[in-house]
Amino acid sequence: MPPIDNKKVNTDLFALTYGSIISQLLIDCADVEDVNRQLDRMGYNIGLRLVEDYLARSSSPRCRDFRDMAEKIQHAFQMYLNVMPTIDHWSPGSDEFSIILWNNPLTEFVELPDSLQNMNYLNVLPGVIRGALEMLSVPVRAWIKSDHLKGDNETEIRIQAIQKDSNA
Amino acid sequence: MPPIDNKKVNTDLFALTYGSIISQLLIDCADVEDVNRQLDRMGYNIGLRLVEDYLARSSSPRCRDFRDMAEKIQHAFQMYLNVMPTIDHWSPGSDEFSIILWNNPLTEFVELPDSLQNMNYLNVLPGVIRGALEMLSVPVRAWIKSDHLKGDNETEIRIQAIQKDSNA
Repeated sequence: MPPIDNKKVNTDLFALTYGSIISQLLIDCADVEDVNRQLDRMGYNIGLRLVEDYLARSSSPRCRDFRDMAEKIQHAFQMYLNVMPTIDHWSPGSDEFSIILWNNPLTEFVELPDSLQNMNYLNVLPGVIRGALEMLSVPVRAWIKSDHLKGDNETEIRIQAIQKDSNA
Repeated sequence: MPPIDNKKVNTDLFALTYGSIISQLLIDCADVEDVNRQLDRMGYNIGLRLVEDYLARSSSPRCRDFRDMAEKIQHAFQMYLNVMPTIDHWSPGSDEFSIILWNNPLTEFVELPDSLQNMNYLNVLPGVIRGALEMLSVPVRAWIKSDHLKGDNETEIRIQAIQKDSNA
């Protein structure tokens, strides 16, 4: 088995491969909302698997709280996508925060045409986070709140804890 | 812009993302043959783009002949997938050869169920090669000849030059 540092592939290949998922979904899906849903679902399934890998590599102890978990998500972005997002915009109750991406390898070649302004190109990412946290029994809502591809200053993924007793 | 060495993402994330393409195609496509065709098509489109990136980074001079080109494909596998295939099984006329993969990051988590023994999980790869060479005006046929996932000793991608005068 190769050492961990060698477990890397080229960013451009990854970006183009991700782009071909988008192209395929645009052919297959009824509308842009459906593309967003499929991307979220694909991300969710990736997250369910990726979290095992994360735990195995990071030897990370159990999260103390939601703030600790946010730091681990930040670390995971660095580990997997080789980018360092900012964690910010905490809610007063510390149960909601944002992951702010200043750059990312997936959108390097991308410009959204006007007809796709409702598509969340990166919608796989909140799905991955939701899936990974689900496996850790930390249910969250996750969505893209602002998007650099749509002219926003940065890309912001919002994460909101779902209180476990909210269904009681 | 980050230096070239930083243009890497994690292999497992890439493998899982590729896996979710396969899952999506298995839902969308009529049959396994159609999945193979779609993967080849997606690869072709990736290859059309990736070759520009390859030329920009490798500052590679124009290929002298088909053997020289085979070496450059070998180099590209190392650059993009971080694996070093063997180039072998040349035809007597030097117009056909095989790329032999001993390992690759895309299939690390994969076991093909019996029902998918006709699927070429890696069919994106011959597509990428065909697309990239098309852009360089080197038309080829490319296909998976043997497949480690189906019990073969190694995965072999066969590349065959299409003689330009064959349509004359």
